[in-house]
Amino acid sequence: MSTNSINGATDQESLTLPLLTSHRSLANSTSQVAIVGANVCPIESLDYEIAENDFFKQDWRTRGKIQIFQYVFMKWSLCFLIGVIVSLIGFFNNIAVENIAGIKFVITSNMMLFNRYGMAFLVFSVSNLVLTLFASIVTAFVAPAAAGSGIPEVKAYLNGVDAPGILSLRTLFVKIIGSISAVSSSLHIGKAGPMVHIGACVASLLGQGGSKKYRLTWKWLRFFKNDRDRRDLVTCGSAAGIAAAFRAPVGGVLFALEEMASWWRSALLWRAFFVTAVVAIVLRALIDLCLSGKCGLFGTGGLIMFDVYSANVTYHLIDVPSVLLLGVIGGILGSLYNFLLDMVLRVYNLINEKGIFYRIFLACSISIFTSCLLFGLPWLASCQPCPADASEACPTIGRSGNYKKFQCQPGHYNDLASLIFNTNDDAIRNLFSRDTDSEFQYSSILIFFVTCFFLSIFSYGIVVPAGLFVPVIVTGASYGRFVGMLVGSESSLNHGLYAVLGAASFLGGSMRMTVSLCVIILELTNNLLLLPLIMLVLLVSKTVADAFNGNIYDLIMKVKGFPYLEMHSEPYMRQLTVGDVVTGPLQLFHGLEKVGNIVHVLQTTTHNGFPVIDDSPLSESPVLYGLILRAHLIELLKKKVFSSTPVPIGADAFNQFSASDFSKKGSGNGDKIEDIEITEEEMEMYLDLHPFTNASPYTVVETMSLAKARVLFRELGLRHLLVIPKISSRSPVVGILTRHDFMPEHILGLHPLLFRSRWERLRIPLSQLFKIF
Amino acid sequence: MSTNSINGATDQESLTLPLLTSHRSLANSTSQVAIVGANVCPIESLDYEIAENDFFKQDWRTRGKIQIFQYVFMKWSLCFLIGVIVSLIGFFNNIAVENIAGIKFVITSNMMLFNRYGMAFLVFSVSNLVLTLFASIVTAFVAPAAAGSGIPEVKAYLNGVDAPGILSLRTLFVKIIGSISAVSSSLHIGKAGPMVHIGACVASLLGQGGSKKYRLTWKWLRFFKNDRDRRDLVTCGSAAGIAAAFRAPVGGVLFALEEMASWWRSALLWRAFFVTAVVAIVLRALIDLCLSGKCGLFGTGGLIMFDVYSANVTYHLIDVPSVLLLGVIGGILGSLYNFLLDMVLRVYNLINEKGIFYRIFLACSISIFTSCLLFGLPWLASCQPCPADASEACPTIGRSGNYKKFQCQPGHYNDLASLIFNTNDDAIRNLFSRDTDSEFQYSSILIFFVTCFFLSIFSYGIVVPAGLFVPVIVTGASYGRFVGMLVGSESSLNHGLYAVLGAASFLGGSMRMTVSLCVIILELTNNLLLLPLIMLVLLVSKTVADAFNGNIYDLIMKVKGFPYLEMHSEPYMRQLTVGDVVTGPLQLFHGLEKVGNIVHVLQTTTHNGFPVIDDSPLSESPVLYGLILRAHLIELLKKKVFSSTPVPIGADAFNQFSASDFSKKGSGNGDKIEDIEITEEEMEMYLDLHPFTNASPYTVVETMSLAKARVLFRELGLRHLLVIPKISSRSPVVGILTRHDFMPEHILGLHPLLFRSRWERLRIPLSQLFKIF
Repeated sequence: MSTNSINGATDQESLTLPLLTSHRSLANSTSQVAIVGANVCPIESLDYEIAENDFFKQDWRTRGKIQIFQYVFMKWSLCFLIGVIVSLIGFFNNIAVENIAGIKFVITSNMMLFNRYGMAFLVFSVSNLVLTLFASIVTAFVAPAAAGSGIPEVKAYLNGVDAPGILSLRTLFVKIIGSISAVSSSLHIGKAGPMVHIGACVASLLGQGGSKKYRLTWKWLRFFKNDRDRRDLVTCGSAAGIAAAFRAPVGGVLFALEEMASWWRSALLWRAFFVTAVVAIVLRALIDLCLSGKCGLFGTGGLIMFDVYSANVTYHLIDVPSVLLLGVIGGILGSLYNFLLDMVLRVYNLINEKGIFYRIFLACSISIFTSCLLFGLPWLASCQPCPADASEACPTIGRSGNYKKFQCQPGHYNDLASLIFNTNDDAIRNLFSRDTDSEFQYSSILIFFVTCFFLSIFSYGIVVPAGLFVPVIVTGASYGRFVGMLVGSESSLNHGLYAVLGAASFLGGSMRMTVSLCVIILELTNNLLLLPLIMLVLLVSKTVADAFNGNIYDLIMKVKGFPYLEMHSEPYMRQLTVGDVVTGPLQLFHGLEKVGNIVHVLQTTTHNGFPVIDDSPLSESPVLYGLILRAHLIELLKKKVFSSTPVPIGADAFNQFSASDFSKKGSGNGDKIEDIEITEEEMEMYLDLHPFTNASPYTVVETMSLAKARVLFRELGLRHLLVIPKISSRSPVVGILTRHDFMPEHILGLHPLLFRSRWERLRIPLSQLFKIF
Repeated sequence: MSTNSINGATDQESLTLPLLTSHRSLANSTSQVAIVGANVCPIESLDYEIAENDFFKQDWRTRGKIQIFQYVFMKWSLCFLIGVIVSLIGFFNNIAVENIAGIKFVITSNMMLFNRYGMAFLVFSVSNLVLTLFASIVTAFVAPAAAGSGIPEVKAYLNGVDAPGILSLRTLFVKIIGSISAVSSSLHIGKAGPMVHIGACVASLLGQGGSKKYRLTWKWLRFFKNDRDRRDLVTCGSAAGIAAAFRAPVGGVLFALEEMASWWRSALLWRAFFVTAVVAIVLRALIDLCLSGKCGLFGTGGLIMFDVYSANVTYHLIDVPSVLLLGVIGGILGSLYNFLLDMVLRVYNLINEKGIFYRIFLACSISIFTSCLLFGLPWLASCQPCPADASEACPTIGRSGNYKKFQCQPGHYNDLASLIFNTNDDAIRNLFSRDTDSEFQYSSILIFFVTCFFLSIFSYGIVVPAGLFVPVIVTGASYGRFVGMLVGSESSLNHGLYAVLGAASFLGGSMRMTVSLCVIILELTNNLLLLPLIMLVLLVSKTVADAFNGNIYDLIMKVKGFPYLEMHSEPYMRQLTVGDVVTGPLQLFHGLEKVGNIVHVLQTTTHNGFPVIDDSPLSESPVLYGLILRAHLIELLKKKVFSSTPVPIGADAFNQFSASDFSKKGSGNGDKIEDIEITEEEMEMYLDLHPFTNASPYTVVETMSLAKARVLFRELGLRHLLVIPKISSRSPVVGILTRHDFMPEHILGLHPLLFRSRWERLRIPLSQLFKIF
């Protein structure tokens, strides 16, 4: 009561008193680096605003019909290419994993057939170790950005965070071979996340017209000169990744929409749909090709696709409680999973910081530990006699099947080995399959669940490409099946369906998607009649899990330090104005500026945008003309269109430039100010910035509330937001807001008062609730 | 060549010359009325901006945890209620239609069994006429806004267009009973579109807390005080509508996302998913209830759901050409359909303008015409002998079935009557069904296709609730089946699947959605293996059709005159500045304003937002303080918090107001200035506007390009955008931009030069292409 009345009193005061005293530091101290993959990198923002300068307008106006047609045609051709390439990579990936892992399991199983268990373990663990070592060495030395699933990195990129190397050719290459060898090495990791990253890399490289570094560029591809078009392509690429990984074209589109993209348009929906349709059709054709057995051990296993069609799934009211129970368990386990993964990642970060060799050592220890578990645990399970009416050979001969012999006598099988001593895909298939209700023992399923749960947490953070989807599905399916076995004959659903629902609940609890997960699971299992149950399970598990913590990818992004701009504002931002946050000192240019000044400013600051003002004699009082980008200034300095006196240049100056000079360079490919040589004489000359200045920058008045400025910044995807003064007597610009100025850490750092003041009372529940709903 | 060089020359000039001479009219002459349903209404804009005034901030700060929890809880409870109510209405709708139409067909068929053809025709046509008459009278007299499908109206509402009565209780009521009787009267119209409108009405009424007009309000429901929250609810409602109409929960979410919503957030995706999940679960429970035959003639027919599962659909490369052909035909027919429908609607508008009786007469003539066609055409078809191995009774006895006897002898059936003398749902089911490859003759299918195509065009515009989805599906299915028959045994697909693909292609060609249609069709037909083919067909048909004209709903919106703000800007907007478009004269208020002035301005203008400026003695030079809304001014005048001298009021003034005073009223429910009585004495008093003024309005500088200002306006969902001057010597505000200022017609009206100048060259292809891609 008393706190309330005190709060009430301060609230009343706050209307007349200024909200904050002006003790604010001047430099933005927010960290502008993040962990990309496994390495710490400096990061920049992307710029989705169109720099509408005279040159751009001129270029835009002179575009004829043919160029516009060419642009549209290129857009769609690139989408087609993305679809084809990503589906080929996805297919190759699958064939390689199935064959490498398959041969390993066949050799080991054969040795065990002759009771050479020691030798079998040696072969199994050494081959796993070698594969992991290879993957980790390649990742650590060649492209650290390829470590992990890549989904957080791509998600941050699509939010406007530019980190060098995130989508480079090197990353693509390492991601493909690293993912193949890591997944084949029986680590408890998936290949769907890396596929998303691969799709994004392919899209980005095509959009940039190849990799400049490796001189693999195609001029006809260099059509997309801005971050906007590239963002759209990368969104399509990530949709293609999921579509190729799960053969789920609609699910892929929805995944890109729900989880990955920060900006979305209806037109993009259509293009993403086109890309995933291409993926679906190419994959289908390739699988037809493999049906005849030309793809080695691939074909029986095949792409992830778990046909559980029981033509008439019937369920009744009696099944609802157990389905709800599954949802609740999924929510609790999912949030626990996220919490533990977050902790482990923080610990791993400490280890990874120590150096490359620590990273590789960590990866190898996890591999050895995994091998021991996978080989050791099945010994705990008792052998089961083969069922008389088994629809397939028992015990299984060769590669995939439900009945692994392992250490058992002929005519018996080891049910735990069927799950654990197998590829993840086969384990899922076994768990999902129907008419196998008596195949597994309680203890085996329970051991399998615990192993999966913890192994996948400890395996994610090592320095290899590693996805989360498949481990989460396996873990969810195992406890789903366990619940199914507990419910037993009370239920009209078979255990395979419980496994599917369990997988859905754990996915919902840890990844917190709804529509996309629902469609992905439907497409994976090819049974539409399950729809209402899957929706129910997802809703329950997401609701329960959201009460505890956030989406797993958001947590990972936070651990990695990406300045991700959320949609919603923190409540205290509504009480702050833009003026409370904007920092100086500000570097300005005049419309007609001395070359020496420009060079000096570019050399001494790292800013990427500078306000341009007009002063006397062009205007009576200083007036804001616009905003010029560093990249454009460097281009101007390179071309040296200087004049010895401060006079405007004519339109003919445009002839010295082509549109591609002002196009956005690929990440890290821009010229640096240090590379440009300018003579002493030129330093004294003048440059007319007007035609190259974006004369329509977005502006906010300094008294605007921070929350509303943030909405503007976020919705329009800006990199720079100019702050203009309320009263006109001062300089025409107060400052520039960038992404880092909107980060809660920065704002709370500027105004430490906010931390322990009455705002806190509001901050926690509100931000929590608004994040969730 | 010569034109090119001339253009080049003018382009060069344009850099130095001002783009436009300042011959511009002062008033915004754009029509601010639109056809809503069947009547012409004045329209307003909705306001998605938060009016951040001191009062709001105070209210926001004093909200405790409980209130926030209450808010979130209400949000989800309303979603739950929307789901339950919409599914109940949808179910009731279906039962009513199936029973009314069913009884009609049973009686008619029985009469024909005894060769009383004349009597049968009389009963058939009179019952149709009575039903149509009832529907049209109810619609025309009670709620003209309920005419048509309602999708264009809801789409416009979700874009920020507020028309009175669009989502009122009266509209809801008429839409339900009108749709039932119109669909039962064998008109060639659907019930899916009306269901979307019904869902939107339910959501809006719940969001507003009931209908004030009919005193049906619940205080505990009045929680959502702004257009933003209501928009979200209406989006969920429209998703629920499609989900209930087609039993397609995921399709419903995607439809709302792809076609209806102009703004979308990930959180909304989840809520829409929740709503449609509720719909799916309730519908399933209700259908279970009906399975035992308690629902009259409903149950055998049931909700639209066409199970065409042939467990193993196989298709090969040889099927691709015919599928592509279907896509191309669908695209051409779809755009032709849109074109003709557009024409017919324009003609109908002329008739409808003449008065209510013309409208009803038109509806009745269409009904009689339809009855004649439906009864007359089957006589053209020759009777077919019943197949020996028919899986059901032949000829059909009673209500639904594949083999209608019509005029044939016993042991024979009339294949055209099975299609045409039937409800649309049954016709679709017959067309989609497999193992019926020899049932239909070429001529029957062709006659049916032509009849459907034209009847549906002529039936849409009459003054009854009428959807487009089902007629489009029937028409598409009929030519799909025709193509299937032509291809014949060359193909491995059966004719039923061709009908499905034909329906997909025609939907794609006329509605131009992709992902949502794809999912809706999958959910309708319950066969996931068709996915790649459906994707292919949709892509081809949409691409082909987009080359000719736009989406059917966009065309209808244009005919109706809704000021829909598209995502993309017209190219010439990039060459104009905000200053070229903004119109005056502008009404300003001072921070401390005389009551008399306020009343006078409110009485003499219809503006909804006014800039508030601070002048001496509060500030040295005039300074923009913010923007105040008309509704808030009226509220202030009502409470009469005046002071006799111009002094700021203290914080205690807030105690006289509650947050709900400043909440957005339901459409048409706001107080009018004429209703407020103010004495002469009070007219001389002062009002402090500061605490009630939105101190953080969005602003643009007058030199900003119109295209970029438009992006800001559109993306943030604004109603008012303040334009501030570049040079500070003048008034601190130049003007206000509203939705109508961004309409191409308005801009071209202001600057007729743009019409016939070089811009035209660019305007057509660019706008066309950017709309499409």
